[in-house]
Amino acid sequence: MQSEQSSDPYVLQHLRSIIIHSLDNFNYSNAEFASERLLAMDGDNLESIYLYCLTLFRQGKHKSCYARLVDLLSSNHLGFAFLFAKCCLILKKYQEGIYQLFRLNHLYSESSLEAANSTANPFYFTTNHNKFNYEHRRSIYPDSSTIYHLLASLYKGINDTKNSALNYVQALKHNQYDFEAFQELCKLGKPGIRASLKRNNSSGIIPTINNELDPQSTTVSMITMKEIEKSENYLLGLYVIFAKGFKCMCKYDCYKAIRILESLSEKEKETPWVLSKLGRLHYEIVNYKQSEYFFVKLRKLDRTRMEDMEYYSTLLWHLHRKVELTYLANELHDLDPNSAIAWCAIGNLFSLTREPDEAIKCFNKATKLDENFTYAYTLKGHEYFGNDNYEMALENFRLSLLIDPRHYNALYGIGMVYINLGDYQRADYHFRKAVSINPINVILICCVGMVLEKLGKKNLALRQYELANKLQPLNPLPIFKKAQSLFSMQQYPQALKYFETLKELAPDEASVHFLLGQLYNIQNDKFQAIKEFTIAMNLDPKGNYLIREAMESLKEK
Amino acid sequence: MQSEQSSDPYVLQHLRSIIIHSLDNFNYSNAEFASERLLAMDGDNLESIYLYCLTLFRQGKHKSCYARLVDLLSSNHLGFAFLFAKCCLILKKYQEGIYQLFRLNHLYSESSLEAANSTANPFYFTTNHNKFNYEHRRSIYPDSSTIYHLLASLYKGINDTKNSALNYVQALKHNQYDFEAFQELCKLGKPGIRASLKRNNSSGIIPTINNELDPQSTTVSMITMKEIEKSENYLLGLYVIFAKGFKCMCKYDCYKAIRILESLSEKEKETPWVLSKLGRLHYEIVNYKQSEYFFVKLRKLDRTRMEDMEYYSTLLWHLHRKVELTYLANELHDLDPNSAIAWCAIGNLFSLTREPDEAIKCFNKATKLDENFTYAYTLKGHEYFGNDNYEMALENFRLSLLIDPRHYNALYGIGMVYINLGDYQRADYHFRKAVSINPINVILICCVGMVLEKLGKKNLALRQYELANKLQPLNPLPIFKKAQSLFSMQQYPQALKYFETLKELAPDEASVHFLLGQLYNIQNDKFQAIKEFTIAMNLDPKGNYLIREAMESLKEK
Repeated sequence: MQSEQSSDPYVLQHLRSIIIHSLDNFNYSNAEFASERLLAMDGDNLESIYLYCLTLFRQGKHKSCYARLVDLLSSNHLGFAFLFAKCCLILKKYQEGIYQLFRLNHLYSESSLEAANSTANPFYFTTNHNKFNYEHRRSIYPDSSTIYHLLASLYKGINDTKNSALNYVQALKHNQYDFEAFQELCKLGKPGIRASLKRNNSSGIIPTINNELDPQSTTVSMITMKEIEKSENYLLGLYVIFAKGFKCMCKYDCYKAIRILESLSEKEKETPWVLSKLGRLHYEIVNYKQSEYFFVKLRKLDRTRMEDMEYYSTLLWHLHRKVELTYLANELHDLDPNSAIAWCAIGNLFSLTREPDEAIKCFNKATKLDENFTYAYTLKGHEYFGNDNYEMALENFRLSLLIDPRHYNALYGIGMVYINLGDYQRADYHFRKAVSINPINVILICCVGMVLEKLGKKNLALRQYELANKLQPLNPLPIFKKAQSLFSMQQYPQALKYFETLKELAPDEASVHFLLGQLYNIQNDKFQAIKEFTIAMNLDPKGNYLIREAMESLKEK
Repeated sequence: MQSEQSSDPYVLQHLRSIIIHSLDNFNYSNAEFASERLLAMDGDNLESIYLYCLTLFRQGKHKSCYARLVDLLSSNHLGFAFLFAKCCLILKKYQEGIYQLFRLNHLYSESSLEAANSTANPFYFTTNHNKFNYEHRRSIYPDSSTIYHLLASLYKGINDTKNSALNYVQALKHNQYDFEAFQELCKLGKPGIRASLKRNNSSGIIPTINNELDPQSTTVSMITMKEIEKSENYLLGLYVIFAKGFKCMCKYDCYKAIRILESLSEKEKETPWVLSKLGRLHYEIVNYKQSEYFFVKLRKLDRTRMEDMEYYSTLLWHLHRKVELTYLANELHDLDPNSAIAWCAIGNLFSLTREPDEAIKCFNKATKLDENFTYAYTLKGHEYFGNDNYEMALENFRLSLLIDPRHYNALYGIGMVYINLGDYQRADYHFRKAVSINPINVILICCVGMVLEKLGKKNLALRQYELANKLQPLNPLPIFKKAQSLFSMQQYPQALKYFETLKELAPDEASVHFLLGQLYNIQNDKFQAIKEFTIAMNLDPKGNYLIREAMESLKEK
């Protein structure tokens, strides 16, 4: 009774609208039901199959979507390849996804621009007018930038950073507002990406075809076009600031990054993204008070935030804020008990309460929940190191580096292990590698100096401490190392000068009390020396490794 | 430097387009970044906040979305209330969600039709033209049907079936193609829903305002309008068939449901939805062979399907298909180890291999993964019953009924427990209640007969068996019970007639072998009787409770 009209284009169009409306309103089972009807009427139509698969994907039925598409890839439908590769990314079948997208390169690369006129036009979003007006002219098909972005993510999955970076650059070329692509590019630490986010790219890669591709643009008045261009320039200018700031941050050019972000308007500075970046930047330069200020502000703005809270929890660990860390860990766990970040915070809490075995269990749970969670491996490594389990410490630091070769914190950890094992060459290699990633971290620079001292190169060591002191004149660690170094070179008057600076600078710092202990020791006042050591130990129970090492050197005398 | 233009409507529109494009292409972190920028520029604009919250919701950050909106509800923004209530549904704060949606009833109920002209017009989707053309004129705001649907789901969450049904009816009124709403309505077993999906409703609730609400419709030619109306009629006709079929199924009017679904076109019959329903319908009428046929076909079409596989696994259990059930259970577990359905299938497998403790563990895992998974409680109940643990069996059957009062299988289970406890009044009550839900299930009817026999009402019992026999002339169970009953009433010639019918009908049925055992027993051939009993026991190890009962009654003599 109901077959004569089943392929009527009006009926099909009606069903498509029902499906897309259901998807837009999160009524997925309804979308699937209508999709089945569409397929029953029009099963050979690739666009109908695409809509069905989109419905599967939106429901999170990735294995179903994959299975449905795997036999249809020979049709060379770009939407199919996109959804298939998207499933591949989730199912970790990276190479398969890359292959399928790469095979259809001619459909979305710039060279295919002229041919683009189908419904699923991947250059739809590259014209100024469509980009601007997308809200009112949406497309269910991926555009070129989306496809390049996906390719980049797939390459990232197989650790092919070169091709990953190349494709993120392409994604940005086709959509300058794909800031996520830009961030990934920065995280990969790829140079030569300067061109990827340029101001005023309105005469960019798609220079002449605007009008040809976009029939409606002729109806847009010249005034509107001018307004659109103006808004484009303004917005790009704003994005460039964020891009510059983030790039500096990824190069650990923290002072510059802070300066750039501080140049933003007050309202921009109050957004979660900026607050979290400022919090991390100040953390990186060991400016804990200021870092705490931004993290507290961020938590006030959004107490349900998960992102970056692993760093905040480590910050609270450094600041010995047991109460705050307890709150944070519990709240994160309440928000999502299956979040790796929450378990990271809980691990830090156990570390602070000196329960290293429990802490390690938590970090293990975190890496089980997210096997690519670099930071948890590093924290686990430090925990093992604190327990003198060097073997496990090394293993975890190396796991960190496997996931993220630029994770300097793990290189620092490895260096510390080798120092403790007396293998100064290897320690030197890892500290210098860490410094090459994060060149202005005073702790790392002091570590390099420390190894130089061990190798007997006292003058070179002193130069490192001086560099660190220059970078952060108020940080007591370089002054301490410098003073200590001068002391060991028997340049007592100079050493004493720094000791005194230090005393005023940081009366609450553990290292200062160590230093005072050392001073008293020189004066043969053992009683006062031991008192100061004890205060220092209480202030920094797990022991900043450097201070501990200083204590050892003291005992040796 | 960048504040003078920040509230420029063109810049805001551009950002909106960036956000929506990112959402459409699953680039959620990018959408969130751009949303933050939008809020920084235009933080007081409710539409900007809505877009930000939509981005949170799409990312699955339900607690963040909830927290963000909870303080903004006084603004009486329908989109806010919608997203908030959607979060409430997921976070199981049903009443809160209901309250917020109900409070804004004046914004989406029919009485507010005239006032509807904002961007977030909830009646946008109710006009024929917009409905038809939605793909090209999408909206990021919920429409009235979506809101009623959500209200219905929330009411369902607090077991308020009356209000749930009322709101599903409203959802259908505003969108006749919300088949999910229709299905839910049927599952609630609410009568008086006949009007909810009517053919040709183009002159339905929104009769006159089409042109007023839809400026573009004037540009659509009369011919197109006619085509749209034609397609609407066709599609509604098709949906009505599905609706009728599903409604019959929910009333366990299985034969009629099968007839209706079989009237569909061949291509419709090959879709997953139809195949799964036919599989279940044949299962319900104990037509296992045919049920298997449809489930096998369904699995061939989509081997990654999860839905309804719990029923298929029980079917395989009934058919003693150990190999197939092993495959099914393993494949489902591979697809999703956290799926309650998969654990149901595994439980059935253990049940089949006679490991009841393991089976119960699996069913427990299933209900832990999905605490509203009625069927798993019922299977657990049967497993406990098979183990003679009546207390736990009752508890689980009752849990089933708490979630779904129309789950007749649990009522059957309770009846069986009371029969075994000798409480025939209670058994009678539960069997009759089960029959009132599923009036044509021959097993249930035989159960009623069985209790009547126990109560000494042999003639009434015989009438039940005759009714069951009439409903399914080829099903051996009613014949068996009938013959047995006649036998006990010493009407030997009549009894013998049925015994012979039975022998030809089902040589592989356990019950028949029992019967044969009984026959031999009459003839005092104890050796053959025991042989037949043994065959029967091997065919149905866990024992169809009825047959076991028959054996008992035999022993008593």
